[in-house]
Amino acid sequence: MSFITIFERIRNNNIFEGFVVSVILISAVSIGFSTYDEVIESKYQNWLQILDYGVTLFFLIEISIRIIAEKNLFKFFKNGWNAFDFIVVFISLIPIEGNDMILLARLIRIFRLLRLISFVPQFRILIEALIKSIPRVGYVMLFMFVVFYIYAALGSSLFGELDPLHWGNIGLAMLTLFQTATLEGWPDLMYSAFEVYPWSWLFFVSFIIINSLIFMNMIIGVIIDVIVRSNEDETPENIALLEEINLKIDSLNKELEALKK
Amino acid sequence: MSFITIFERIRNNNIFEGFVVSVILISAVSIGFSTYDEVIESKYQNWLQILDYGVTLFFLIEISIRIIAEKNLFKFFKNGWNAFDFIVVFISLIPIEGNDMILLARLIRIFRLLRLISFVPQFRILIEALIKSIPRVGYVMLFMFVVFYIYAALGSSLFGELDPLHWGNIGLAMLTLFQTATLEGWPDLMYSAFEVYPWSWLFFVSFIIINSLIFMNMIIGVIIDVIVRSNEDETPENIALLEEINLKIDSLNKELEALKK
Amino acid sequence: MSFITIFERIRNNNIFEGFVVSVILISAVSIGFSTYDEVIESKYQNWLQILDYGVTLFFLIEISIRIIAEKNLFKFFKNGWNAFDFIVVFISLIPIEGNDMILLARLIRIFRLLRLISFVPQFRILIEALIKSIPRVGYVMLFMFVVFYIYAALGSSLFGELDPLHWGNIGLAMLTLFQTATLEGWPDLMYSAFEVYPWSWLFFVSFIIINSLIFMNMIIGVIIDVIVRSNEDETPENIALLEEINLKIDSLNKELEALKK
Amino acid sequence: MSFITIFERIRNNNIFEGFVVSVILISAVSIGFSTYDEVIESKYQNWLQILDYGVTLFFLIEISIRIIAEKNLFKFFKNGWNAFDFIVVFISLIPIEGNDMILLARLIRIFRLLRLISFVPQFRILIEALIKSIPRVGYVMLFMFVVFYIYAALGSSLFGELDPLHWGNIGLAMLTLFQTATLEGWPDLMYSAFEVYPWSWLFFVSFIIINSLIFMNMIIGVIIDVIVRSNEDETPENIALLEEINLKIDSLNKELEALKK
Repeated sequence: MSFITIFERIRNNNIFEGFVVSVILISAVSIGFSTYDEVIESKYQNWLQILDYGVTLFFLIEISIRIIAEKNLFKFFKNGWNAFDFIVVFISLIPIEGNDMILLARLIRIFRLLRLISFVPQFRILIEALIKSIPRVGYVMLFMFVVFYIYAALGSSLFGELDPLHWGNIGLAMLTLFQTATLEGWPDLMYSAFEVYPWSWLFFVSFIIINSLIFMNMIIGVIIDVIVRSNEDETPENIALLEEINLKIDSLNKELEALKK
Repeated sequence: MSFITIFERIRNNNIFEGFVVSVILISAVSIGFSTYDEVIESKYQNWLQILDYGVTLFFLIEISIRIIAEKNLFKFFKNGWNAFDFIVVFISLIPIEGNDMILLARLIRIFRLLRLISFVPQFRILIEALIKSIPRVGYVMLFMFVVFYIYAALGSSLFGELDPLHWGNIGLAMLTLFQTATLEGWPDLMYSAFEVYPWSWLFFVSFIIINSLIFMNMIIGVIIDVIVRSNEDETPENIALLEEINLKIDSLNKELEALKK
Repeated sequence: MSFITIFERIRNNNIFEGFVVSVILISAVSIGFSTYDEVIESKYQNWLQILDYGVTLFFLIEISIRIIAEKNLFKFFKNGWNAFDFIVVFISLIPIEGNDMILLARLIRIFRLLRLISFVPQFRILIEALIKSIPRVGYVMLFMFVVFYIYAALGSSLFGELDPLHWGNIGLAMLTLFQTATLEGWPDLMYSAFEVYPWSWLFFVSFIIINSLIFMNMIIGVIIDVIVRSNEDETPENIALLEEINLKIDSLNKELEALKK
Repeated sequence: MSFITIFERIRNNNIFEGFVVSVILISAVSIGFSTYDEVIESKYQNWLQILDYGVTLFFLIEISIRIIAEKNLFKFFKNGWNAFDFIVVFISLIPIEGNDMILLARLIRIFRLLRLISFVPQFRILIEALIKSIPRVGYVMLFMFVVFYIYAALGSSLFGELDPLHWGNIGLAMLTLFQTATLEGWPDLMYSAFEVYPWSWLFFVSFIIINSLIFMNMIIGVIIDVIVRSNEDETPENIALLEEINLKIDSLNKELEALKK
């Protein structure tokens, strides 16, 4: 029995799975508690750290064996989940001791929680569904970006000197337009430019209407897509049966005519 | 005729049903009026209180008999509505007199209004539909919680010292993220951290985009679910008929061949 | 030819229809202009007033004849559009001269614009569709009202003294909850009660989640409704044909058996 | 080989297409950079300007040839994309030198980016889909406008003197209602009129409810439309086959009867 099958057995073992998820969850809870009071958790800190190192070690060994088994390193990293696992494990290995970089240490501890997403199969399925839905709306997103960019260029040219915090450069302008797209605080942005450019309302109202039209069309496009595909899935069975029946009746007809002669 | 059937008859009697609903509604209206002026209602207070006690008593007796009839207490409480009724009746029984705990007395009076939801069948159906829709979106909710938790841990690490009111601990951070998910006032949160962390926009924009992607996928998932099931409901009848026709034509064919010989 | 047919002919005449719509539209534009500058419109005021009186007179005569023709007054008002027309015409007749009640005069002039909605057939269809969609969501609305009422009673009991502007009585509380349901400014409401009731977030977060669950279920319910009905519309034709074919094959089978004997 | 086919070949050549898109994209990026620091881009300015002139020249020649080829100028401009291209090219030709009108020059440079939309086929398809979706919702939009107008007339009559910034004339009032329809900051508008008109909440709440009812009906209408059409697309094939089978069985029946005789 090779190492890989042993590791696969361990990995797919329900008890071990529950153990790993528990360690990650306890780690998550401990991160949560430490935001209330840094002292509280220090008691169980040592035990937790040992468990955490254990799980990190397991993931490290597991991924090492998976890499060795694949032989072809390029093929290994073509699978998105392998790349994700590698990055998470790699960053998890950065030592988090040392008082002078507490923030970074915390961020790495939080980053380790991402192992949960790649470890729980249902979350992998969800993520894959999310990624699959991106190309479906790809050109719409690109078009939305073009609309954002043109409006951002317009916005920073027109309002840049009036309100540099929101329209000072094209980056800030795109952020401000994202804010406008979430319909949050856009009237304030409009009224602040109202006195100098009395037609500034046209900029905002047209942007909001164009945006919601694009968004509505995207949603409806996805629903059409879903309905059409679900109908296609269903139709073949019906049609196939109907065509079978049709052919049989044709042969019946021929036989009857043969009988008549 | 057992007590249970008598009570069931009373309970299902239209006039009695209307009476109970009326008492609850009058109680609701009286709670509403008391928020305008505490004196107004004192006039009819006594009559109302008697009616209220009467209904509470009825519910108490009814649930007692239902519990006695079931014999198996565990089985009784397995039904969610029984447990709900029991809790509402039980809390309704806490005496609400005494001047030193007016607020609690009021809360119990409001709590009693929940009897309306369990008493009107259409509301029970609605609630059951709502509860049925939860597992459908269960893993998505769990995933959303993981996303919230990771972002809350990040947020409280990064912004905790800058803005302790919103990011002071992981609880406050999750509340702030819920606020961000409702797209309410998120630009203020972002700009308050903008000077220290110029890339804080990435935190908010990525959170909003990930959130709306998950939400959109959940909605579309539910619609797909509904369409697929409605097609399944419809198809069998069609397919069954087609298969019946197919078999009959096969037998026709066999008989014709028998004729030929 | 009776008066009614004459009036129906006039009413359905394209040129007259265009004329009436034009007069209403000109009246609308004149109302719009008068908000910029009350003097501008005074020039054409007289001509416009004459046209306006003419159209009002036409509607008055038309509705009078329709009422007389119906004989049964109760039957006449059972039709919602008749009642709507009657109210609009009746209120249109209130004389709008007199300087001391300018606001009322203006409101009546605006009210007259409603004739457009009942006069243009496409708008009538739209309104009818809107009204038809109400019973579909009737119990959900009632349930939502119960949820609002219970939360409003809770809110005015808990926050009434802290923030009387928003929670002073049950009416204000329901308005504040409507505001919360539109997700507008709810964090401010929450934070204003945060210091006294640290768990006030539970009130708002639960209300928002329950509300959006109910709303989502309503939307999905309507879509299910639409899909099921559209499938039902389509299926009968298919099923009917299939059943016809089935019966014919049965008779074929019988005849073949008769042949064999 | 005519000029048109030469130009069509050049236009449809992948390398040239990529070159044109690149020039437009570089132009876009340069506009973006210039919002950060006007000096940075001056280095590559000359090269970029030459490329930009080249592309403008190409578009100018191409559209000229297309116009000449069409002969019928009216027919040429009936195609929306031709008109769009013509306007973009025409405005692109306005010289952008001169220090005294920097803003206009910038706006024209941004306007040129619109060539991207008409040049990339996928964007043309998207825009056409957006335009196609407008008549589908045409009467609803018109009805919404009537509702906006009536509410704006009401609003400017009622609140015009209290809050002239938001309700001063019917134009401002419609803008304020658009803001209310996006649910942004409407409670502030309501509370500012609350003291004078205690029933002002009715104005806002009714407007928001009517608006969301209309919007919901529009969305559901579009989805119904899509489902019905997708069912129609699918049904004919089924029905046609069924009817064919039906006729064949009829002829089978007749032949059997002929056999019997």
